[in-house]
Amino acid sequence: MNRSNRSWLLERDGTIPLYRQIEQQLRQRISNGEWPVGTRLPSQRKLAEQLGVNRSTITQALDELASWGMVEGNKGGGTRVVNNTWNRLAAATIDWDSYVESGAHQPNLPAIRQINEAEYDSSIIRTGTGEPGPDLLPTEHVRRILADTSDEPFLGYEEPKGSLRLREQIVQYAARQGISCSPESILIVSGALQALQLIAVGLLQRPSCIVAEKPSYIQSVRVFQSAGIGVHAVQMDEHGIQINHLQQQITEHQPGLLYTIPTFHNPTGTILSSERRAELLELSSSLSLPLIEDDVYRELWLDEEPPPPLKSQDRQGNILYVGSLSKMMSPGIRVGWIIAPVPVIDRLADIKMQTDYGSSGLSQYVAARWLADGHQEQHQTWVRQQLRTRRARLLAALEQYFGDIAQWNAPAGGFYIWLSLPTNVNVHRLFTLALREQILIHPGYMYDWQASHHIRLSYSYADMKQLEQSIYRLRQLVKQCMNT
Amino acid sequence: MNRSNRSWLLERDGTIPLYRQIEQQLRQRISNGEWPVGTRLPSQRKLAEQLGVNRSTITQALDELASWGMVEGNKGGGTRVVNNTWNRLAAATIDWDSYVESGAHQPNLPAIRQINEAEYDSSIIRTGTGEPGPDLLPTEHVRRILADTSDEPFLGYEEPKGSLRLREQIVQYAARQGISCSPESILIVSGALQALQLIAVGLLQRPSCIVAEKPSYIQSVRVFQSAGIGVHAVQMDEHGIQINHLQQQITEHQPGLLYTIPTFHNPTGTILSSERRAELLELSSSLSLPLIEDDVYRELWLDEEPPPPLKSQDRQGNILYVGSLSKMMSPGIRVGWIIAPVPVIDRLADIKMQTDYGSSGLSQYVAARWLADGHQEQHQTWVRQQLRTRRARLLAALEQYFGDIAQWNAPAGGFYIWLSLPTNVNVHRLFTLALREQILIHPGYMYDWQASHHIRLSYSYADMKQLEQSIYRLRQLVKQCMNT
Repeated sequence: MNRSNRSWLLERDGTIPLYRQIEQQLRQRISNGEWPVGTRLPSQRKLAEQLGVNRSTITQALDELASWGMVEGNKGGGTRVVNNTWNRLAAATIDWDSYVESGAHQPNLPAIRQINEAEYDSSIIRTGTGEPGPDLLPTEHVRRILADTSDEPFLGYEEPKGSLRLREQIVQYAARQGISCSPESILIVSGALQALQLIAVGLLQRPSCIVAEKPSYIQSVRVFQSAGIGVHAVQMDEHGIQINHLQQQITEHQPGLLYTIPTFHNPTGTILSSERRAELLELSSSLSLPLIEDDVYRELWLDEEPPPPLKSQDRQGNILYVGSLSKMMSPGIRVGWIIAPVPVIDRLADIKMQTDYGSSGLSQYVAARWLADGHQEQHQTWVRQQLRTRRARLLAALEQYFGDIAQWNAPAGGFYIWLSLPTNVNVHRLFTLALREQILIHPGYMYDWQASHHIRLSYSYADMKQLEQSIYRLRQLVKQCMNT
Repeated sequence: MNRSNRSWLLERDGTIPLYRQIEQQLRQRISNGEWPVGTRLPSQRKLAEQLGVNRSTITQALDELASWGMVEGNKGGGTRVVNNTWNRLAAATIDWDSYVESGAHQPNLPAIRQINEAEYDSSIIRTGTGEPGPDLLPTEHVRRILADTSDEPFLGYEEPKGSLRLREQIVQYAARQGISCSPESILIVSGALQALQLIAVGLLQRPSCIVAEKPSYIQSVRVFQSAGIGVHAVQMDEHGIQINHLQQQITEHQPGLLYTIPTFHNPTGTILSSERRAELLELSSSLSLPLIEDDVYRELWLDEEPPPPLKSQDRQGNILYVGSLSKMMSPGIRVGWIIAPVPVIDRLADIKMQTDYGSSGLSQYVAARWLADGHQEQHQTWVRQQLRTRRARLLAALEQYFGDIAQWNAPAGGFYIWLSLPTNVNVHRLFTLALREQILIHPGYMYDWQASHHIRLSYSYADMKQLEQSIYRLRQLVKQCMNT
């Protein structure tokens, strides 16, 4: 079911014909200003899909509206609102399109907007989604936390840096990972993405730039670019970021910082080797280059524990460390954190207060209890078992269907497999064809515009049977997309 | 208790002298990079206060650190970290100060940062805070919602516009206020402030400007200014914004939109009269000027229901309507919403996804149940009763202690009384003197830089007895601050 359907209330067995019901509901949306004069309506195909009716029913409804002078078709086949009946002599209306186009913040890449939209259609098979599937979420545990009334949630505002109780838990959690810090040097954020957002607007000049691995998650979000900050790419190999190329890029671009995912890199799954870690720390220190260490995948190791965080070796306060509960406990709870020098945390806390007055106290309450009660450890063990099985099945499916035409890594943790298809495959076409068959893929160019024949697969979200079938089907589609 | 104390673990009955314990903990913070080389330590006075020890103990600890070469005093009496022992031959360290100063986002006004900090010291009496006090929060209701396991929270990501279930509840809630809309034209945000943040970066050119009442809440947050957007002030009187002056300002500045709080205005408590509402809608329509209607205080009417929202009369989609649960149910839950034309909501949802991937699903779950179960109505009735009593007590205290020297309004709803002191009172000095006695006031210049002899009082937060005592004490301090 497409969940958006519920916005339209059609009585399918009613006495009023469907086209008439649709006409009335469209008219209401136009007349109450939800779709102001000038708005382009969704395409007839899309409306038909959303409402679960034949396209001819939509056409009939729109024809009615057109006869009232409320909408007008154009040559391109689109329909625009031109009047709203109650105001035939209407005043000039606001040109919302021009507002929508003039904001400083960049829109998401079109592919990402399509993905964001498709992800909420539950009939779609999500082959690349970077979050734990619903069956991996500790819903029962959380329900128990909520139901335990020996403690009570605090409904007021938390401190600027976030709930002290949660920060104390994170001090202990970080200590287990080798990071020594106190609550003042922690800021609670609404997920790792917000951490990056705050750093982008809080710590970097405009214009300026940063460097990041190529490919990188950071290229798929506009968070730095929208703050007027460029992102330069640094080559990586199977041991992680290439230090030589990093040095070159630093010399050439004088970046404000390096954004890196050293452990179970997104999207390649790579682990930065211990040797490279030492070199990177040395470089950061000798060039006074701050690092953002995005470490949200750390606990998702499947074979053996990864090397300790870079932050655990950072005695000078060069590293802004980013952690999160999204990948292991719950993405929807929106709890992440930054560990950094106190002056930096003070600055970012001040901006966060100006942006949203702090993260949900309820989420922080549940997160603190989750960590305090030791649920995380137990849950991690279970999730790792599940992910090992899923990884094995996805790897087997790839072997079977892509063994002759593609390359990939076998990741030691995290969610992702970075699939390298033949260079003559048009991945954008593949994306479109697959989506028509309800298969959603994450094209490689989201993470590196030059990664034109890669896709990111994930064994974390989709039902395994459906994922295996999709891999089978994708092979056929890939064949179709070669040389096109 | 200052809650930050818990960051320092001092054993007061231990065998290790206090100054030694403090030295060790300071050293740890310096050596693990929380206070990197170059950091200015908090003042000795402040450290002594935070740790609850004599200032001489702090001096002794710092002297020890200085003898290790880790910190250095300067002439101004401040102390800076100069080395971190393990790195006597340390590499160049990162100059975090320069990073902190170069971000695009403006810092909060110093008075606001002081307020944000002071608010988390529970020994302070908060005379101007714009949130319900802990005793007005429906903690027991929320606990019951959480404990009811007939339903379960969803721990995954919600749709880009927010939980459909919550948006459906808001459709009904808005309908009771006369606003007709469907779920597609609603975006769930993490409180009203985030709504403004998204509008600032999503819909307005840079540079450009907006207009707002004088004084206004919007002047106390940097959300538009930080996005490169100026804010011009429009005069108001006891009936709300002055339409003539608004027209002048529009002609002169060509603003992108008007930000207004027509109902229980913050900080003056004013209600825009029905006549002015009609004029404002007419003006918006004839000049194609979009409005942000900030309506977060609507349900806090104490004498009679206020006029319906401007949005309820908006057939053209000119109004971006902002609502929130912060003032009536829980500020900490961080749930607010924007109701606006669909193209605008689509754009803002896209930016929100790029900023924080949506608001806490747990908060949205609780908010939806709160609204669905009809808790809000019942709670509102009770809160209104409480606020009526509190308002009466604050007004009586003002009559008694300020009757001869100040003017104020008797608000018909909301939280605030806008107190106009004699023009020769230095309010900044008053703020400082009062804070020394643990009384926190909100100076008028936060809301209008020319409101140099006003303060915002609130009857929503402080314990009434303490508030009355503070009013008594403030009178004496005001006398001290005249002509200084």
